[in-house]
Amino acid sequence: MTRPTPPFDGGPDAGLFSPVRAGTPVEEAVSETAWLQSMLDAEAALARAQAALGTVPAAAARAITRAARAERFDPRALAVQARETANPVVGLVRALTEAVAAEDPQAAEYVHRGSTSQDVLDTGTMLMCRRALDLILGDLDRTAAALSALAGRHRDTVMAGRTLALHAVPTTFGLKAAGWHRLVADAAARVGAARDALPVSLGGAAGTLAGYLEYAAPGAAGTATADAYLERLVEAFAAETGLAVPALPWHTLRTPVADTAAALAFTAGTLGKLAADVQVMARTEISEIAEPAVTGRGSSSAMPHKRNPVLSTLIRSAALQVPPLATGLTQCLMTEDERSAGVWHAEWLLLREALRLAGGAAVTAAELAQGLTPDPDRMRRNLGLTGSQVVTERLAALLAPRIGRARAKDLLAGASHAADARGVPLLAVLRTLPEVTAHHSVEELEELLDPTAYTGGAPGLTTRALAPAPAAPAPPAATVPTGTESAKPVTAPAPAHATTCVV
Amino acid sequence: MTRPTPPFDGGPDAGLFSPVRAGTPVEEAVSETAWLQSMLDAEAALARAQAALGTVPAAAARAITRAARAERFDPRALAVQARETANPVVGLVRALTEAVAAEDPQAAEYVHRGSTSQDVLDTGTMLMCRRALDLILGDLDRTAAALSALAGRHRDTVMAGRTLALHAVPTTFGLKAAGWHRLVADAAARVGAARDALPVSLGGAAGTLAGYLEYAAPGAAGTATADAYLERLVEAFAAETGLAVPALPWHTLRTPVADTAAALAFTAGTLGKLAADVQVMARTEISEIAEPAVTGRGSSSAMPHKRNPVLSTLIRSAALQVPPLATGLTQCLMTEDERSAGVWHAEWLLLREALRLAGGAAVTAAELAQGLTPDPDRMRRNLGLTGSQVVTERLAALLAPRIGRARAKDLLAGASHAADARGVPLLAVLRTLPEVTAHHSVEELEELLDPTAYTGGAPGLTTRALAPAPAAPAPPAATVPTGTESAKPVTAPAPAHATTCVV
Amino acid sequence: MTRPTPPFDGGPDAGLFSPVRAGTPVEEAVSETAWLQSMLDAEAALARAQAALGTVPAAAARAITRAARAERFDPRALAVQARETANPVVGLVRALTEAVAAEDPQAAEYVHRGSTSQDVLDTGTMLMCRRALDLILGDLDRTAAALSALAGRHRDTVMAGRTLALHAVPTTFGLKAAGWHRLVADAAARVGAARDALPVSLGGAAGTLAGYLEYAAPGAAGTATADAYLERLVEAFAAETGLAVPALPWHTLRTPVADTAAALAFTAGTLGKLAADVQVMARTEISEIAEPAVTGRGSSSAMPHKRNPVLSTLIRSAALQVPPLATGLTQCLMTEDERSAGVWHAEWLLLREALRLAGGAAVTAAELAQGLTPDPDRMRRNLGLTGSQVVTERLAALLAPRIGRARAKDLLAGASHAADARGVPLLAVLRTLPEVTAHHSVEELEELLDPTAYTGGAPGLTTRALAPAPAAPAPPAATVPTGTESAKPVTAPAPAHATTCVV
Amino acid sequence: MTRPTPPFDGGPDAGLFSPVRAGTPVEEAVSETAWLQSMLDAEAALARAQAALGTVPAAAARAITRAARAERFDPRALAVQARETANPVVGLVRALTEAVAAEDPQAAEYVHRGSTSQDVLDTGTMLMCRRALDLILGDLDRTAAALSALAGRHRDTVMAGRTLALHAVPTTFGLKAAGWHRLVADAAARVGAARDALPVSLGGAAGTLAGYLEYAAPGAAGTATADAYLERLVEAFAAETGLAVPALPWHTLRTPVADTAAALAFTAGTLGKLAADVQVMARTEISEIAEPAVTGRGSSSAMPHKRNPVLSTLIRSAALQVPPLATGLTQCLMTEDERSAGVWHAEWLLLREALRLAGGAAVTAAELAQGLTPDPDRMRRNLGLTGSQVVTERLAALLAPRIGRARAKDLLAGASHAADARGVPLLAVLRTLPEVTAHHSVEELEELLDPTAYTGGAPGLTTRALAPAPAAPAPPAATVPTGTESAKPVTAPAPAHATTCVV
Repeated sequence: MTRPTPPFDGGPDAGLFSPVRAGTPVEEAVSETAWLQSMLDAEAALARAQAALGTVPAAAARAITRAARAERFDPRALAVQARETANPVVGLVRALTEAVAAEDPQAAEYVHRGSTSQDVLDTGTMLMCRRALDLILGDLDRTAAALSALAGRHRDTVMAGRTLALHAVPTTFGLKAAGWHRLVADAAARVGAARDALPVSLGGAAGTLAGYLEYAAPGAAGTATADAYLERLVEAFAAETGLAVPALPWHTLRTPVADTAAALAFTAGTLGKLAADVQVMARTEISEIAEPAVTGRGSSSAMPHKRNPVLSTLIRSAALQVPPLATGLTQCLMTEDERSAGVWHAEWLLLREALRLAGGAAVTAAELAQGLTPDPDRMRRNLGLTGSQVVTERLAALLAPRIGRARAKDLLAGASHAADARGVPLLAVLRTLPEVTAHHSVEELEELLDPTAYTGGAPGLTTRALAPAPAAPAPPAATVPTGTESAKPVTAPAPAHATTCVV
Repeated sequence: MTRPTPPFDGGPDAGLFSPVRAGTPVEEAVSETAWLQSMLDAEAALARAQAALGTVPAAAARAITRAARAERFDPRALAVQARETANPVVGLVRALTEAVAAEDPQAAEYVHRGSTSQDVLDTGTMLMCRRALDLILGDLDRTAAALSALAGRHRDTVMAGRTLALHAVPTTFGLKAAGWHRLVADAAARVGAARDALPVSLGGAAGTLAGYLEYAAPGAAGTATADAYLERLVEAFAAETGLAVPALPWHTLRTPVADTAAALAFTAGTLGKLAADVQVMARTEISEIAEPAVTGRGSSSAMPHKRNPVLSTLIRSAALQVPPLATGLTQCLMTEDERSAGVWHAEWLLLREALRLAGGAAVTAAELAQGLTPDPDRMRRNLGLTGSQVVTERLAALLAPRIGRARAKDLLAGASHAADARGVPLLAVLRTLPEVTAHHSVEELEELLDPTAYTGGAPGLTTRALAPAPAAPAPPAATVPTGTESAKPVTAPAPAHATTCVV
Repeated sequence: MTRPTPPFDGGPDAGLFSPVRAGTPVEEAVSETAWLQSMLDAEAALARAQAALGTVPAAAARAITRAARAERFDPRALAVQARETANPVVGLVRALTEAVAAEDPQAAEYVHRGSTSQDVLDTGTMLMCRRALDLILGDLDRTAAALSALAGRHRDTVMAGRTLALHAVPTTFGLKAAGWHRLVADAAARVGAARDALPVSLGGAAGTLAGYLEYAAPGAAGTATADAYLERLVEAFAAETGLAVPALPWHTLRTPVADTAAALAFTAGTLGKLAADVQVMARTEISEIAEPAVTGRGSSSAMPHKRNPVLSTLIRSAALQVPPLATGLTQCLMTEDERSAGVWHAEWLLLREALRLAGGAAVTAAELAQGLTPDPDRMRRNLGLTGSQVVTERLAALLAPRIGRARAKDLLAGASHAADARGVPLLAVLRTLPEVTAHHSVEELEELLDPTAYTGGAPGLTTRALAPAPAAPAPPAATVPTGTESAKPVTAPAPAHATTCVV
Repeated sequence: MTRPTPPFDGGPDAGLFSPVRAGTPVEEAVSETAWLQSMLDAEAALARAQAALGTVPAAAARAITRAARAERFDPRALAVQARETANPVVGLVRALTEAVAAEDPQAAEYVHRGSTSQDVLDTGTMLMCRRALDLILGDLDRTAAALSALAGRHRDTVMAGRTLALHAVPTTFGLKAAGWHRLVADAAARVGAARDALPVSLGGAAGTLAGYLEYAAPGAAGTATADAYLERLVEAFAAETGLAVPALPWHTLRTPVADTAAALAFTAGTLGKLAADVQVMARTEISEIAEPAVTGRGSSSAMPHKRNPVLSTLIRSAALQVPPLATGLTQCLMTEDERSAGVWHAEWLLLREALRLAGGAAVTAAELAQGLTPDPDRMRRNLGLTGSQVVTERLAALLAPRIGRARAKDLLAGASHAADARGVPLLAVLRTLPEVTAHHSVEELEELLDPTAYTGGAPGLTTRALAPAPAAPAPPAATVPTGTESAKPVTAPAPAHATTCVV
């Protein structure tokens, strides 16, 4: 018995309350319709794989492939039916079988042959993940490229380094942007590794592949022929989908999902770092950076004068959401039996939202990075607020070898205090102190007290961090630690994802 | 500039991958369309509240109310526009203004008068929460009633108490069901308290209500009249919406959201306890309970013989998802300034999913509780597996005063071991031991070793836990600790939510 | 067989890497030693409760109470033994029995009589929680009092309201501090409710109380006498410990733990809001607030000139940690059987850390609130950075009724832009616009453009939010929704926790 | 001013309430004392690295190394002082300087030269992580080896495959154990990758290395010489500590911490899967597996007959705790400025607890895996409970080609139902059905209905999954995507961590 579909149909999923992903490509890639299509793609690929091995007629596989179009099926009816079986595949198989039968009754016998719900849902999920991760990789690459260029342009742009909310010592905007670039490259490496390891799911009712075998070779179980058949079946399925070959059926070995979740949380978190820095620098009182200006963007419903840092706001919103979602997914590693009664089912929503939130953050970050406008003059002016006090560390370093570290620290703390109290520059105090003037002329002091001259290794670090990774001596073997192996050889990762290991 | 709406429209939100809520009333209550309508309801209520105070023409308020229908607006267009401002209200106000102007250009001047995006979104959110929490309360009440009846029927049904996965001492199914009932009642109390405290949001651009005041009484700021006006405005807004009056504008004082999140996580967790127990008892080897049978429910795509415990599976899936979502919401308490750049925005998706997952779990739990079928015979048979060994605690209690506790424990451990080793009942060993037979005849021992006679206070506890709460001597004052006060007096909670405090 | 205690003893727990709680009273209240003592207190109270009912000799209860001193036991030995049984009580009971026997062999027979590990550990945990929550309540009260005074002093201190990182419209520091006060009062209400509901745990091996009954009245199970005995036993245990009477044994009904966790997460989150705001205002470029100055506090290992906002840093660190810990605890609601094999055990560490982190945050917040030093001059100067542009909302409100809202908005946006472009005050542009000057003289405009005159209802809201709550007409009945009832009547909450419900 | 150390000293950290790690090596490796020593090791290594480059006298580096012994310092005094600066390094540097000065006043000038708190704390943390991860790797290897042997021994041991709590189709215990092995190997790969990438932290006050440079080569900033010096300094520091060289100073680029957290959460989750399965199989009614028997282990304080599955209980408790802790760490990726005011500080406790909980789980898992005792007879008997119904999938596969899939499914469902209703074996019904007997003799049916003959590819999958990974054609280059590079060449991972990619 299925209950009648209620008149309400679930409504649209326009992203009205999740603007970070509204209208972005990743949203389409993981829409309900797209995921449904992915499950149908899995059914079709399974039939073709069996056809390739001769255990399903080629014509049946073709008929199944033709019928496996999402637009033929009613997601709402399937969703409501899914309440009867706890997953949407049982109803989908029934509907697909009918659709195939309408065209080719013989072929209908071969739909979902030997299979189980989880094989179809998991493989469909992996296809959806791959699409989304590919989009995210593209956006991370665009972001990294823009940040790299930004860092290069501002290699020598001096600004206040800030620690615990206060000016510390000078740094450069180039080094800051190089750090963002580094994180984005790290994220791309993790997303890329997770993407390349996404496997097909093929296990049958309890992970033994028995159903597949029984249809193909009744009675052969336990023979070398049977084992070889199953091995070839998984490989053929992987070849049809482009996914990797798993080491074992993974119905309750959820490494691929946990790895994807970890990569998404990492990505959202690192983009959140970029957003957090932009928001600090965009504050009215700081004004060292502006988001890309687009007419209409950032306007307020109440205040005509405002231009809000909207892109970083969207990114930060995602960065706050993805890690908790990913936790839920990591916890699903602890799952019982050959298929869990609820743990598997808890993954679906969490994974989809994590994908589109992280994906929305990535596309937004690319736009942000490409249009970020730093204001070097303002950076220098802000640095002047703390004046020469940001270089007391430097003077301490110079005086310590001469008058001892403790004495140098006391002397400088006293001088800072006196300068503050009298409202004069630090130089005005230091030039009166014999312990100082014994070693440094006023001209030297002036130079030493120039904050813009105290950036240490920042420019050099920036240059080196942005240098292209040296060509690897040989294409690295597939050492991605994921218990999977691509059907086709894993090629070396694209340079943009490579880890620049220097200093 | 707004980008063109992309051809893809976000697709449907049918719940294909979240079956716990597919087709349930709570899903409709928190759909994008429903939330959009709630924001429009907030706009209309605001106009009517101002009209009630005479600062907006009544006709304008009527026109705004007429135009404020979700079906007139395109959620996708609004969603895509929301990327430009980081929230959907700016675009919505523009579109609503146009819709009102089309009918009554004068009235259009009064749309969103003095207001700010967050007032509208937050108030709309509270309206949506109230709808959802009311549904959840109804389902928790149905669940509690069914569990109470179940516990009453099985007050004396003996079963194995299980600790650390093993038989411990006997208990009763009635006590177990009474415990589930207690948790569901606790959940209802928490949801009810959160629901009653949901406040309107009214703060204006930075929480000072200045815009509302300026339109109503230019130049009056700081006078007693002005303060009284604002007080009456909030009260009128609360009266129009049925929500509570907050102590202060709460744009960055997120108590209502955190409280709702905590109540939802608690609800999902407690229903998860019910589901976990049902799954243990439904296991093939245990078979002490069956989910309600519905033709087609629980069928497998591969195995004709199976009838899966689908309802508990759905509930457990929600119980695993809601707490991480709720964490994200609790973390949003830490938010900066008068409106955060991203923290507020992170709440929306998390809250909506938490509402419909917890709500789906509640409606599913009601169906489960109403149809749960325990098997007392099987319970007794399973208890027999451990036999009289589950009452060694009892014998220890009896022997200890006579032979000392340590000796009693050793004697019983030895006897258990001997019985196991020889494959005989414990009685066969005990009747040979002088330390035992000195105090107990074989008949007494037989009685003492009967597991079904060793249920301690279980039946009595059950009876008392299910007794209706005594009538409160007077309607309790509103002591819900939420920083809010209902516009209308809080009535005493319905008995079903009351906390039965006994033993 | 117990393994030999390893030579390493676990080391100290000095808080070197958790400074937010190092050396605070809450740390001592939840130390391992204190928790151990609480379990011993539970054992002693249980013996005394049984003695009060005449089922244990009074002398035995006294001997047990005398022996139940934590300093007599070796935590490391108990910890290592706990690996053999998955909880520390089995070993503790053995050691306590030996300690009692050394003094009074007869009394040793009555140690842990009829009990089970979880009764002792849970009751001990509740005693520890009560101590910690009382300390937290005290610190929240101190914090609230300080914030209330601060808000009162700065009722009319104008500052920039900030939204999405930018100046929005003016607000007052008093309103901001009143908001912090509101959150702290909300936290105190939640902590207080959780504290008052902390119950004793008494269930026996599987929650039926059978062991307690068997020792007291062998063979009486099922009689009214037996049920009455058990009821009195729980009440006596509650009276001995000062904890509440639970509705049912709650070994796997974890409401008290989940409620405590939720209150702690709420507390940490709300204190985190205070810290986040302080850090924004303390930034070098903003400098509107300073943390209390203490010689040596906030110094840097590298930079003599810095005075870091250390207290808010410590608080924020706790606010980031407690919500994830609390999630773990909420998830433990989903627990199977009459005692879980692992879920219960997952609570202990999470709960203790959440208590001392939230407690450390509370004591730190009190110190911060008592010494916070706002700088009204700097607030005014910062407000001047945006100048009259922060009041364009105000002008829009005045012009809209005259020239239409859309036109008013366009005119002001244009004027703002022109003023920015020409580097002149907004007034210089507005005074040249006939649509403006037709309605307002230059003097009026000057007044209207004064940011400090546009604080709306902020001062009034502040006054009302700080007003003492009106005396309740009668002591509110205990309506705390926690499934528990205090052994002694719940008195009305102290005023400082009351919810001020105004506007 | 430092406040007096309070009389309470924090107490012991014996693990009384965290038995999963009590007395294990990882506990010692991450004790407060050990972490303190690691920070001292970082100080000493820094001095030696500078000495190696000639910018600190070798004698001073030796004196610092000699003084850098944790036992010389008072953790409680340092912890209380840490409240003044929000980190323990400021006080430690002061104390270390005094300790060095007591022996060699000249050398004291070189303590912490050019450095900052975070360099020392982060490097110390990485040293602690490495020790802990090495221990975890060892335990994962032991666990994997034991599981591999177990799987091999039980390659053909038939048991019920269980899905959604019910018997599905047969599987083998070997395949189940091979799945556990696969997950443990995946965990080892992730832990190993994180471990190999742990870098030194060297950035100076704001990540520019300026202080280090100023002491070494005043005025050289910006020259190639200066950059080369800094590069060599980082390399020398890495060489002294054995840690990797980072791509950039990473004070707010928290990849190493996030990666470690992800690996720990993965490890705990996968071990939790093992524990969850063991607990299901250990249930009284199932009894297919027993934990290793150790006298005294698993005893109950109340019930002499019980032998609780203690090891899986401990592991599961850790599996529930680590993912939430890891989330907190992942969220710390979003951190502002050159050093955060609170986010960095939130990492410490979370990381240490995650390390010792995951480490405790790993050592416990090794003990569990080495002693797990499956009961093949009981597995077979349990399988018999569902009897031939677990192979209806098989019959459906055979009949479908002959009578159509839909008809086959209906026929078998009917036959199952009839067999249940009449209480006879499925064979008794099937042998009466002409559609069946037309194709199969009774003898054939008997064979087909034997559950133990329907294990599909399970044995073959097991064999292949346990096969040693083929020797890589060449040592893989370091492609670990972590933005770091080991100072010494990364050697090929040990075979036990390698990913067996087969099927």
